Amino acid sequence: MIDPAMIQTPLTGIVPPMITPLRDRDALDLPGLERLIAHILDGGVSGLFILGTTGEGPGLSYRLRRELIDRTCRQVGGRVPVLVGITDTAMVEAVGLARHAANAGAAAVVAAPPYYLPGGQPELREYLGHLVRELPLPLFLYNMPALTKVPFDIETVRAAMDDSRVIGLKDSSGDMTYFQSAAELLPQRPDWTLLIGPEERLLDAVLAGGHGGVCGGANLFPALFVALYEACRAGDANRAFRMHAQMLRVSSSIYRVGRHPSAVIKGLKCALSITGICDDFMAEPFHRFREGERAVIAAHVVRLQAEIAALGV
Amino acid sequence: MIDPAMIQTPLTGIVPPMITPLRDRDALDLPGLERLIAHILDGGVSGLFILGTTGEGPGLSYRLRRELIDRTCRQVGGRVPVLVGITDTAMVEAVGLARHAANAGAAAVVAAPPYYLPGGQPELREYLGHLVRELPLPLFLYNMPALTKVPFDIETVRAAMDDSRVIGLKDSSGDMTYFQSAAELLPQRPDWTLLIGPEERLLDAVLAGGHGGVCGGANLFPALFVALYEACRAGDANRAFRMHAQMLRVSSSIYRVGRHPSAVIKGLKCALSITGICDDFMAEPFHRFREGERAVIAAHVVRLQAEIAALGV
Amino acid sequence: MIDPAMIQTPLTGIVPPMITPLRDRDALDLPGLERLIAHILDGGVSGLFILGTTGEGPGLSYRLRRELIDRTCRQVGGRVPVLVGITDTAMVEAVGLARHAANAGAAAVVAAPPYYLPGGQPELREYLGHLVRELPLPLFLYNMPALTKVPFDIETVRAAMDDSRVIGLKDSSGDMTYFQSAAELLPQRPDWTLLIGPEERLLDAVLAGGHGGVCGGANLFPALFVALYEACRAGDANRAFRMHAQMLRVSSSIYRVGRHPSAVIKGLKCALSITGICDDFMAEPFHRFREGERAVIAAHVVRLQAEIAALGV
Amino acid sequence: MIDPAMIQTPLTGIVPPMITPLRDRDALDLPGLERLIAHILDGGVSGLFILGTTGEGPGLSYRLRRELIDRTCRQVGGRVPVLVGITDTAMVEAVGLARHAANAGAAAVVAAPPYYLPGGQPELREYLGHLVRELPLPLFLYNMPALTKVPFDIETVRAAMDDSRVIGLKDSSGDMTYFQSAAELLPQRPDWTLLIGPEERLLDAVLAGGHGGVCGGANLFPALFVALYEACRAGDANRAFRMHAQMLRVSSSIYRVGRHPSAVIKGLKCALSITGICDDFMAEPFHRFREGERAVIAAHVVRLQAEIAALGV
Repeated sequence: MIDPAMIQTPLTGIVPPMITPLRDRDALDLPGLERLIAHILDGGVSGLFILGTTGEGPGLSYRLRRELIDRTCRQVGGRVPVLVGITDTAMVEAVGLARHAANAGAAAVVAAPPYYLPGGQPELREYLGHLVRELPLPLFLYNMPALTKVPFDIETVRAAMDDSRVIGLKDSSGDMTYFQSAAELLPQRPDWTLLIGPEERLLDAVLAGGHGGVCGGANLFPALFVALYEACRAGDANRAFRMHAQMLRVSSSIYRVGRHPSAVIKGLKCALSITGICDDFMAEPFHRFREGERAVIAAHVVRLQAEIAALGV
Repeated sequence: MIDPAMIQTPLTGIVPPMITPLRDRDALDLPGLERLIAHILDGGVSGLFILGTTGEGPGLSYRLRRELIDRTCRQVGGRVPVLVGITDTAMVEAVGLARHAANAGAAAVVAAPPYYLPGGQPELREYLGHLVRELPLPLFLYNMPALTKVPFDIETVRAAMDDSRVIGLKDSSGDMTYFQSAAELLPQRPDWTLLIGPEERLLDAVLAGGHGGVCGGANLFPALFVALYEACRAGDANRAFRMHAQMLRVSSSIYRVGRHPSAVIKGLKCALSITGICDDFMAEPFHRFREGERAVIAAHVVRLQAEIAALGV
Repeated sequence: MIDPAMIQTPLTGIVPPMITPLRDRDALDLPGLERLIAHILDGGVSGLFILGTTGEGPGLSYRLRRELIDRTCRQVGGRVPVLVGITDTAMVEAVGLARHAANAGAAAVVAAPPYYLPGGQPELREYLGHLVRELPLPLFLYNMPALTKVPFDIETVRAAMDDSRVIGLKDSSGDMTYFQSAAELLPQRPDWTLLIGPEERLLDAVLAGGHGGVCGGANLFPALFVALYEACRAGDANRAFRMHAQMLRVSSSIYRVGRHPSAVIKGLKCALSITGICDDFMAEPFHRFREGERAVIAAHVVRLQAEIAALGV
Repeated sequence: MIDPAMIQTPLTGIVPPMITPLRDRDALDLPGLERLIAHILDGGVSGLFILGTTGEGPGLSYRLRRELIDRTCRQVGGRVPVLVGITDTAMVEAVGLARHAANAGAAAVVAAPPYYLPGGQPELREYLGHLVRELPLPLFLYNMPALTKVPFDIETVRAAMDDSRVIGLKDSSGDMTYFQSAAELLPQRPDWTLLIGPEERLLDAVLAGGHGGVCGGANLFPALFVALYEACRAGDANRAFRMHAQMLRVSSSIYRVGRHPSAVIKGLKCALSITGICDDFMAEPFHRFREGERAVIAAHVVRLQAEIAALGV
């Protein structure tokens, strides 16, 4: 049933967590979506992760999620693997989405722990066992304790590695001690993929043995993140250094105009709207930046584009 | 469209957050559900709240949630108002569930803040404005910061009281300073209902001006909670005292056999299974108590039943 | 060396955590201190706890702490036991203060976990073992996780009960499940004293088997808290009820004028200043309420005094 | 009174937070202290910070703290500036320690917010104003919210920069967004020093405009951290890269043998004991690693020493 051949394992490089272009609460911005996918793939990324946190997955109706899966898989057309977030409080809905993703041609699904009432680690281990039995696609674990209240403990990750249908971990905890521990498990599964969430830690993560990053900023500047990753892997420290410093200038400007946890997504959507790629409508309870904030983002975008062009990326 | 006549406002007394009897991941325990509703209504409660935290609402498929709404409303048949939890990360799904509830004959819906990526208070105020415009039933706010990461701040509650379609607040924060502040807002809305979540605080809450409680233990011993509430309201301190002490013996035994946040629901379901009312299957990632824990709960149930009988409840 | 005869065990009733009257950063308000001690003892309390959180213990110089111990013990003159807070990040300083307290005639000392770098439970158990060996007075444990970052786990309390030199627990966690567990340990040490911190939980705590409370409000209205405690113990539910409701009116007014964790101490000191008992100077980094807040407190005090007089306390 | 000439400002490079060699609860390991200071200074560091978190400052008696200040200042003899931690819950004690430090020849003092009852930001601003008036030495702010419960907000830092007696900030929050904001304030005070706490972020911090690091690992491998810092400043990316990766191997081994917040200090002290530099006794409530853990650390030390030698540091 599962055809892991669709993903070359381990999956290395940049796998952007795609924002979801919306024109209304329950309507995709279709031309924007097409432009965004084309823009990201042009940057040389290794995969596309939809319906994650950055993709506002849990904030979208299931109907819209299915439509997004269909359209994205169709446009990507197998050029890179599409990973689909199925994190849900109800396992039945997670499985339903995974089946839809398999039919649409996605390569894998991604799941964080159920995030309303937090389970203990033994419960999460059992949950993963039940879940993979029902899944028609291989599974990436998604460690995101700030939003799910509970992590996948390292011991839970280690136990999950015994099941070949679980094929990797995306760690968005920001805790590099955890990441390092996860990297130390790699020898037991040569096909396992270990990706870092926070892009500010991409350089560290690759140095520590990780395979790449799920970097939100790659929605906007995909080539920059690909260049940073490749310089790290090639051991071109000077270049990696410059790309890292440039990446810090993105995150310390675009992501910090708002003050809430939603500031990163708002900043990215606003910048993508300014560059003419897609609409910046956000799913409730969030709303797009207003004029004042938009002007600040616009100034940042102009400056960042010039800096990145000067880097020859 | 909205017929608030179905709820006598303010709603006073005990409104149990009904557990959801399951026989499998996506199947109701139908005879158990019938027995449970009958058992609770026999206790003299003032309403029934389904699909809340205790009801494992977010852990159930939308199909099963709709079936539960239908069956519960049909069996209750208007004897007491049925309140339906619609808390969701996606507003479209919350509205869909509310429409189903309205068609089924529910009296009101109950919503906590979207609980994946937490919004700020201005965003929550705007969210509530958008939500009530789409709702066919009056709305209770549900303050549950431990699980939604963000509270409805008192100022947000105060602002929501300006809209007559929002008719009350269930506070499960356990923060009696917050509850007291909420009680101080009551003069501006004589029809507003203020209910307390944690049953250990019911006595305090009524003394502080609250209208009653959404007490999980009332699934098991509804008459005890009704008696406690009525003694408080009647000023029969001796009786209230004895009922309060008895209630503490329930929560300090049944709820403390497990060690995780799910221990309360597990304990309640296990006790209801022991008393022959319904199955104790739990939605993933949780599972029912195993033999050792079940034996402990069984001993507690026998003792508690004897104690409560001796109180003449 | 230890003369436990000074404390009748278990110690029952109200043991106010005395605020420390200051006239400057490092100077006691001496006439205020005399009036305050007299005022509290007149209320019928069972003991006096100095240099706790409410007493701003950690914020005072060691010189001033020693002076306060001396003056308090001298004025109390054995009428009730004086308990002295010795919580410290440095064990040498805690022991030094305990020796001073013993020489001054204190009855016991009170220690929370070292509160800078938090220890694990095995470390805390070992710490308690080392500490009691050096102490010339019996020890009360002080559970205050909000400020020490780490609790004394129930298992740590149970282990400490094996040492007769540890004679009780003051629980300020506000977690009634923890308190109930602590109460369940009482049969193994008939001389053990279990006291509750948050006064809003005094009634619950006595119902649950506790021996009394360390109630900050008893600085201001000692007789009210003594009456509440005695009504609970006498089983006079009607009276306990009225006292409890009155106590809630104190805490929901005096303690809520400020917005920070220091609001309780500020409110108490301000009210004591308004009633002419002592100065409201506070140790850094805190400062007394300013005019606007003082006027609010003054209005509360007038109203509360009338209400309490009407209760015949 | 203040002679800021003793510190060249801004202070750049590595300023190790020295561990405190103890042979008993209240006794310094004197030969160990001498060897440790010599070892650290040999590594080419820019200053020495004593009595911080790594130095177990709050866990030591004031007598021992004064002795440590005296001995350290005497041995250092002005070769590098000595910074003395005076963080305290009681301002009188903090000032007393600062006076002792000034007399002993220290160059500056370092203070985090009072850490028992946390103050609000306006209170902290006022506190800093009162504190600097009493200090005979310039002050570094120490941002350490995990242990003090409250940060110095960026706005509080900005306000403190208006006072020339406050000369820098050590940020141990680990929050690089905060650090970046602090770096953006540098243009308003060309003499201000901005140092990073967590050594894993040293490279990032220097790239972001910081002046250096207060790296615990520099107790053990001072030359490695100096080399990392200097490579960053020289723009020698290849070298910086290799040093950074090596530093990660230190922190991911030595610091992770224990499981509690004390694991870093325990690991450092144990490794320094294994290399024959000083005793690994720890102030209560902590204790040194036992045999099993010590063997693990010993193996790490051997491997790390070989790796670092191979780097030519």
